[in-house]
Amino acid sequence: MPFVNIKITKDGATADQKARLISGVTGLLRDILGKNPQTTVVVIDEVDTDNWGIGGETVTERRRQGK
Amino acid sequence: MPFVNIKITKDGATADQKARLISGVTGLLRDILGKNPQTTVVVIDEVDTDNWGIGGETVTERRRQGK
Amino acid sequence: MPFVNIKITKDGATADQKARLISGVTGLLRDILGKNPQTTVVVIDEVDTDNWGIGGETVTERRRQGK
Amino acid sequence: MPFVNIKITKDGATADQKARLISGVTGLLRDILGKNPQTTVVVIDEVDTDNWGIGGETVTERRRQGK
Amino acid sequence: MPFVNIKITKDGATADQKARLISGVTGLLRDILGKNPQTTVVVIDEVDTDNWGIGGETVTERRRQGK
Amino acid sequence: MPFVNIKITKDGATADQKARLISGVTGLLRDILGKNPQTTVVVIDEVDTDNWGIGGETVTERRRQGK
Repeated sequence: MPFVNIKITKDGATADQKARLISGVTGLLRDILGKNPQTTVVVIDEVDTDNWGIGGETVTERRRQGK
Repeated sequence: MPFVNIKITKDGATADQKARLISGVTGLLRDILGKNPQTTVVVIDEVDTDNWGIGGETVTERRRQGK
Repeated sequence: MPFVNIKITKDGATADQKARLISGVTGLLRDILGKNPQTTVVVIDEVDTDNWGIGGETVTERRRQGK
Repeated sequence: MPFVNIKITKDGATADQKARLISGVTGLLRDILGKNPQTTVVVIDEVDTDNWGIGGETVTERRRQGK
Repeated sequence: MPFVNIKITKDGATADQKARLISGVTGLLRDILGKNPQTTVVVIDEVDTDNWGIGGETVTERRRQGK
Repeated sequence: MPFVNIKITKDGATADQKARLISGVTGLLRDILGKNPQTTVVVIDEVDTDNWGIGGETVTERRRQGK
């Protein structure tokens, strides 16, 4: 029954990578906490780099500066 | 003043269906908890089936298998 | 498979009121969008009035002023 | 290390406006709570007006009515 | 820079279990998507069973019925 | 009408600090994006350091190590 929300920058993660991430997180919740995989929900949000900030700057700007 | 976030898979919900959902949830919060509809906010996120996992698999994959 | 998060101020909502809210929202998603109730998850967060702001003020402060 | 999620309606906020918002919020967390800007993350979600409800109506509908 | 939010029912997860979950999820994001662990944030919310609904009922009620 | 969720570790932020944060963020949204303060909602979540991870470790563990 757990619910997991993963936010990452939109950088071309493939359907296969996202499927492996979902499978992996669901497995961790089963192995560590005994949670039922059948009712474990994982939602991935891919966020535009203009809309993601760290260190007070957008990721778009940080990449332009080579950070 | 309540805030409600509804996440569903992106499956062609119409503007009318979303409007009815917003109206319905706002009404429930008024009827059950006495919350003021004027300041009740409802946000609906429609999520790609590649980005939604349940049972350790993406919804895309589950549908391919007829689950 | 929908996921719903409801945030309200912590004001003594009873277990029964919360159960009715969960039941009602799950029913709306079934009736309006055909979503399966068995995999619909609803999570309610009750937030301290010091931690909830509207109009630039905390709810604690607004109530002190009779707003 | 704070995490901030800002949800606004999708109304043409520019990259520059979003950058200023990220910078401003990160600065507030540093000035008021002493949080390290280098690990402060801000994510902005821009939401379609069909998917945002207030007062039991979508923002799309409210604008049509001149509210 | 990913941000992960894990919501589970409050059922006595230990500090060690939560630490292993955080370590595991951070490792998956590094291994599958090449994300930097140093800026990966994981936040776990433990939710009262009165506030968690599935199948239109609270978890409290479902357990009472032996579901 | 914006909705802002701020997650910080539970470290004794005072009611006054939280009120200033709410006021400040609401003001930024008005000044930068012209958002109406009367319908801007800000919710602050204070999270136990056992439940917050960064760099693959809990904040509790990092502080024990003097990081």
